[in-house]
Amino acid sequence: MRPQEIIKKKRDGGTLSHQEIDYFVQGVIRGQIADYQASALLMAIYLRGMSDDEQQALTESMLQSGKILDFSSVRTPMVDKHSTGGVGDKTSLVLAPLVASCGVSVPMISGRGLGHTGGTLDKLESIPGYRVNLSAVEFEEVLGRVGFAMAGQTEELAPADKKIYALRDATATVEAIPLIVGSIISKKASAGVDALVVDVKVGTGAFMRDVDNARALAHALVKTGNSLKIRTKALLTDMNQPLGRAVGNSLEVKECIDILRGDVNEANRPVLELSLELSSHMLVLAKVSDNLEMAREKLQRSLDSGEALERLRRNVETQGGDPRVCDQPENILPLTSSSFPIEAPVSGFITYIDASEIGAAIAAIGGGRLLIGDAVDPRVGLTSDLKIGSQVGEGEELAVLYCADESLAKQAVARIAAAYRIRNTPDSQPPKLVKEIIEE
Amino acid sequence: MRPQEIIKKKRDGGTLSHQEIDYFVQGVIRGQIADYQASALLMAIYLRGMSDDEQQALTESMLQSGKILDFSSVRTPMVDKHSTGGVGDKTSLVLAPLVASCGVSVPMISGRGLGHTGGTLDKLESIPGYRVNLSAVEFEEVLGRVGFAMAGQTEELAPADKKIYALRDATATVEAIPLIVGSIISKKASAGVDALVVDVKVGTGAFMRDVDNARALAHALVKTGNSLKIRTKALLTDMNQPLGRAVGNSLEVKECIDILRGDVNEANRPVLELSLELSSHMLVLAKVSDNLEMAREKLQRSLDSGEALERLRRNVETQGGDPRVCDQPENILPLTSSSFPIEAPVSGFITYIDASEIGAAIAAIGGGRLLIGDAVDPRVGLTSDLKIGSQVGEGEELAVLYCADESLAKQAVARIAAAYRIRNTPDSQPPKLVKEIIEE
Repeated sequence: MRPQEIIKKKRDGGTLSHQEIDYFVQGVIRGQIADYQASALLMAIYLRGMSDDEQQALTESMLQSGKILDFSSVRTPMVDKHSTGGVGDKTSLVLAPLVASCGVSVPMISGRGLGHTGGTLDKLESIPGYRVNLSAVEFEEVLGRVGFAMAGQTEELAPADKKIYALRDATATVEAIPLIVGSIISKKASAGVDALVVDVKVGTGAFMRDVDNARALAHALVKTGNSLKIRTKALLTDMNQPLGRAVGNSLEVKECIDILRGDVNEANRPVLELSLELSSHMLVLAKVSDNLEMAREKLQRSLDSGEALERLRRNVETQGGDPRVCDQPENILPLTSSSFPIEAPVSGFITYIDASEIGAAIAAIGGGRLLIGDAVDPRVGLTSDLKIGSQVGEGEELAVLYCADESLAKQAVARIAAAYRIRNTPDSQPPKLVKEIIEE
Repeated sequence: MRPQEIIKKKRDGGTLSHQEIDYFVQGVIRGQIADYQASALLMAIYLRGMSDDEQQALTESMLQSGKILDFSSVRTPMVDKHSTGGVGDKTSLVLAPLVASCGVSVPMISGRGLGHTGGTLDKLESIPGYRVNLSAVEFEEVLGRVGFAMAGQTEELAPADKKIYALRDATATVEAIPLIVGSIISKKASAGVDALVVDVKVGTGAFMRDVDNARALAHALVKTGNSLKIRTKALLTDMNQPLGRAVGNSLEVKECIDILRGDVNEANRPVLELSLELSSHMLVLAKVSDNLEMAREKLQRSLDSGEALERLRRNVETQGGDPRVCDQPENILPLTSSSFPIEAPVSGFITYIDASEIGAAIAAIGGGRLLIGDAVDPRVGLTSDLKIGSQVGEGEELAVLYCADESLAKQAVARIAAAYRIRNTPDSQPPKLVKEIIEE
């Protein structure tokens, strides 16, 4: 087999065999296929697509490229959630303890933020002492003891994904559906889950702004997950505005703890709402609830009784963090006291928010990273109680920015103000949080 | 400017600006753009194509990537010919002396054979002592003194082409028309020619088997050449059978010398015919003849008077070769005496020849190279007096193979015999040598 022949076949719109796909994935990891050959194939896949069969073979090859975790000591069903990424998207920290408290194990292998989107690992690391680098043995121990564990990907799991992702990032092939699906499902499968709920974000703060593309991705994820014996559902959810009240690592952790402590209001309610929705599907897929309604009730009880909060406390403690964060987050989490109001330039209704601009502005003041490897400042961020449809008067507060560096803050304030569109009339319905549920 | 943005634009079918194209070409040469980014763009160009404007910008950037020769001492118009490559394609050795003897300078920068196609440099090197590695100063000297010079590409001319070609070869993007055009025209322009005739081969021995693709390539070549102020014509010519009588380096040189010495027969006539056709267009483009008919007459006189042969002799002498090759080629050129007949398995008419199989079979016994850098054996080859339409009896000779290694020879004999299709009736007209002339 020659790499050129495989590239040529895909270039001409042909269907690659399992063998050809496996040869390629293995060759990429072992360095027998040059990066420039891999990237030519990635572009051909971007432009020519893949059949369901090719998609499944790609995902299997990527999965088999590394270790597959086997948590045989864990007796409860294992279910995970994955989000395609958004701004202020913090549901993992609410739903993992919720789901775990209902008798389902959540072995969550998470990522870091890049560009305008945040990452769960960065949020967790704003809790003093919290360790996200766990060995497989430690991970299994936390999972068994707490019901959920949260850690970064190791070199051993799906190494093909790491290599291929770096190439995609450099060659404008990140958005290819077959490559996204291969990446997500191979990673989740390597953690040995029984079921998976994927939160496919769509809107100004998502990397897919278009519903049709997002829907196609959701279908491919569900089909491929199921083909690998992972019961999979996908939800298309709104990302036309930051999710909830806060953007920024410490602020987002605080928001989640507030919710688990019962402090729910108009601003943070969407975070709870989406977390409950995703969690319900997780319980049903895990077969611990017969239907979504029963799952909701169970989750609500766990929330109301404080059991979910207790799970989070136990997780923080077990993973080395300061458990007092669950009682007085504002005293434990590092936050900057310098704040700057972002004022509405005119009166009217918020009709549009460029959420990716807000994410990028927070990243630019240190809250996220522009390049893999950049350090992240947990203290900076933004809070806003307003949403699309909210009415605001000229000079009133759209949001508050937290940032210690005044010059950086001023640039961010201007950039964030410009991300809002304010009109005389609320020209459309506010976006619906859950748009579609894709089950097959 | 970021490479990803440029790749993305082409990926989505956009039109790249001159600046973007130049940034990319410069970045590739200077190593500021990674090979894997370049190859992703090459694949996007393959699948999305390029506008005339982009094509021109690409070619100009590739040209400007290196030195542009300036033969100011040469007072006659400078015209070159380029062939897209075929089997037994040896017109350069006939037409360069012919055209030079008619008062047109031919600064021929040639290539080496690869895969099933031969290369002019390899043929020339079968003449003992002949040097194809000339400095720019030597090249100009030969050109001024003889009227034509033949040498390999140096590192200084169009270095972008060298780098990009290596990537294309490894990534199944060789056949992209914009990349072919950029490569050919930038190289020819760097030799400072006033006009160019391109012989676009089409058929079983060409890398374009399809007339529509070949025509599209021819149009793009003519348009781009003219946009760079090189008066350019392209001829679509037949490559459904080896051109002329011989395939193999020494044998092909001998065939050309035979023709220049007036020894023309049915078997080698197509070589002369195509050489005269291409040469006539060169004289007209050079403006030394008013029309093709007058050009033909002039060329025929030069051939009949032996002047063209004298030009070749002078060139061989000046470039260090043994000039006696022009009088007794069979004694000077290295040839193997071991020959093997290739017999017709059945009686009938030759209706089809897989010329690329014949080229590949000769390459496999050492007459060509499978990889850049392989050595070539000038002694091996094949001669055949039969063509498509010829009648042959069972057991009669289709061709004769020259090869010193009996075991290799046997494999080649079988492979070549299988490349012929023999039927009871000559099911179609023999292919026309010159199919189309593309002038704009």
